Amino acid sequence: MGEPQRIVMKFGGTSMAGIERIRHVAGLVSREAAAGNQVLVVVSAMAGETDRLVQLCKEAAALHDPREYDVVVASGEQVTSGLLAMTLQNMGVDARSFMGWQLVRASGVHGNARVEKIEAGLLDEALTGGQVCVIPGFQGVSEDGRVATLGRGGSDTSAVAIAAGVKADRCDIYTDVDGVYTTDPRIVPKARKLKQVTFEEMLELAGAGAKVLQVRSVGLAMRENMPLRVVSAFEDLPGTEIVAELGEDMERTAIAGIAADRNEARITLTRIKDQSGALADATRPLADAGIPIDMIVHAATEGAGQSDLNFTVPRPSLAKALSLLEDARDDIGYAELKSDDRIAKISIVGVGIRSDPALSSRMFDTLADRQINILAANASEIRVSVLIGEEDVDTAVRALHSAFELDQEQE
Amino acid sequence: MGEPQRIVMKFGGTSMAGIERIRHVAGLVSREAAAGNQVLVVVSAMAGETDRLVQLCKEAAALHDPREYDVVVASGEQVTSGLLAMTLQNMGVDARSFMGWQLVRASGVHGNARVEKIEAGLLDEALTGGQVCVIPGFQGVSEDGRVATLGRGGSDTSAVAIAAGVKADRCDIYTDVDGVYTTDPRIVPKARKLKQVTFEEMLELAGAGAKVLQVRSVGLAMRENMPLRVVSAFEDLPGTEIVAELGEDMERTAIAGIAADRNEARITLTRIKDQSGALADATRPLADAGIPIDMIVHAATEGAGQSDLNFTVPRPSLAKALSLLEDARDDIGYAELKSDDRIAKISIVGVGIRSDPALSSRMFDTLADRQINILAANASEIRVSVLIGEEDVDTAVRALHSAFELDQEQE
Repeated sequence: MGEPQRIVMKFGGTSMAGIERIRHVAGLVSREAAAGNQVLVVVSAMAGETDRLVQLCKEAAALHDPREYDVVVASGEQVTSGLLAMTLQNMGVDARSFMGWQLVRASGVHGNARVEKIEAGLLDEALTGGQVCVIPGFQGVSEDGRVATLGRGGSDTSAVAIAAGVKADRCDIYTDVDGVYTTDPRIVPKARKLKQVTFEEMLELAGAGAKVLQVRSVGLAMRENMPLRVVSAFEDLPGTEIVAELGEDMERTAIAGIAADRNEARITLTRIKDQSGALADATRPLADAGIPIDMIVHAATEGAGQSDLNFTVPRPSLAKALSLLEDARDDIGYAELKSDDRIAKISIVGVGIRSDPALSSRMFDTLADRQINILAANASEIRVSVLIGEEDVDTAVRALHSAFELDQEQE
Repeated sequence: MGEPQRIVMKFGGTSMAGIERIRHVAGLVSREAAAGNQVLVVVSAMAGETDRLVQLCKEAAALHDPREYDVVVASGEQVTSGLLAMTLQNMGVDARSFMGWQLVRASGVHGNARVEKIEAGLLDEALTGGQVCVIPGFQGVSEDGRVATLGRGGSDTSAVAIAAGVKADRCDIYTDVDGVYTTDPRIVPKARKLKQVTFEEMLELAGAGAKVLQVRSVGLAMRENMPLRVVSAFEDLPGTEIVAELGEDMERTAIAGIAADRNEARITLTRIKDQSGALADATRPLADAGIPIDMIVHAATEGAGQSDLNFTVPRPSLAKALSLLEDARDDIGYAELKSDDRIAKISIVGVGIRSDPALSSRMFDTLADRQINILAANASEIRVSVLIGEEDVDTAVRALHSAFELDQEQE
């Protein structure tokens, strides 16, 4: 085990769903405390509870004041915090709960606030006195003295912010998966759990559709250099460490993993007139409505001085985007507006890409060998993404997993 | 309607059970605000929600830290506060919710705290700015900076304390009954709703088993001289005013009402040895365990220098009381320990009793005429209570209701 440490343990809604599971969580917490560690626990609401509360808000008023929404939905974590604290006490562990407003100063918009500051003094006192501190995730108090929530999935961010605020040695995220995998094991049964990934890789994987951690929490951990671990709340297995740099003794492939994102839809504007201004004209109404665009392709139409413009938007925003583009038809000047939601984005992610440009060629070659048509592509320093037809996703992911030697056991 | 006033409206759990009912409540609030009144609303949790949360606490730990219990159960009113505020906004009423910890300083034991002080400044500001203030009942913040609840039914007390704190003109308690009746209408269909009762009468009625308002809230209203009204949340009917003194133009019978309390059980210790010390010896262990006793009768046993000791305890405490008395058998010195839970306490309550002692005789005569055996009796300045067999309750209440002319319409 090594030296006693100060650690944050974060548990999601599935882990907190009912007293039996809360008792199991209390057992995991108790073990860390018994090993001499100073322990802070950040909890989510019981699975389903936040959805239930959000639904009540929607029924009360379709467009509701986010400050009142925050008052309602923040209650779910308050309940699990109190229940976990009393369960720990019942097991003989000295524990107490705190409320978000006692500890977490937040700023920005209600319903999607940012953590500004943790009142570490209160926590320090309890921790040095040997108390386990139980804290509701997802919430704090805003500058106007009211309850503020951090947006869905915000408990991961709470956990990292609290870990940074109390200068914890690490932050462990307990979830219903047991770590970060090379790809989705439902597509590739040989997918392996990674021992380590870097913050950058995790950010790119999350952005590319891997749903293990909230993107914002990974960004915060990277800025604060707070080591994370993703571990199973249900099985006693080693998880995945998320770190600034891979350990020197860590033998790992250049590619950390492959993500498949089916949450995009493609929009095509045919025969746009003004090639230079069309992209700006087309994206302005979407940007104003907060709809991000990605995977842009400007393709020349045969013969004529005209071209088609293609890009993707998040699938839930497709209808809204089409309606906005229809309204802006005269400004943009296009012949036809088409869309396709049977597409997917496949990404390879790994710090090795930075130093080895041949990796992207290997991706394109592998897909070409399988006759998979690449509709668009883009890349960051450590990621290459391609847009393909949705029917090709499984074939593509399996081929890439094998081509980048991710199928093989490694040490 | 008269001059615009500052009023507190309190809604119970049945009125807040679901969005449809919350919308109805918002309509009642909106009407008072539209009439130019400054309105504060104190709400309970949705019917059943507090029971659900209490049950979760029990499952988590049979003996739980009351500070953690408070964190869990206080969440119910937080939810309804936010939902009512957004519903009001949606109807075009300027409204906002507050949290207990922003407004209500409490002291004493967690789970059963007392209101010490209302932070009226925040409320004054909102009210003078034309905002309706929605406040969760039943809770505040304790001296140690943690959430504290006021005990079951505490929302009535919250409402009265807040009304006193902001110097409201009156406090209206909306419930699922439409006022205070001369007796239980399920026993006497001719029971009538009272236009007015005094605080004293209401306290005695509540203490004698009438369950309209929490006793503590009536005591607080009396000390603060805060006029209350009990009104229906569902029907648009005049309710009952609870006031310091009956209005001069108020024609009312000397007796305000008749209460039947089936929540007591009788204990008999036969042939106690030491008549002078027995009562003290018998009640000491019960007092130490917080079990109140009532309706004490010391009856001589025929012939011998011995007597039986009879008294009542709350029915839920009967088993505990018997076990304590069994343990103390040698100290007390009695022959037999018997109990009877098929008894009931019938009380007449009215300020007229103070000035007319003949009213108690009329009570005893009326019961004697019906051959109803009086097991014990006691009285306060404005109340006379008798203990009778449970099988006689309906007959007794009907006979008294008629004997005290409560059946008749009055103005």
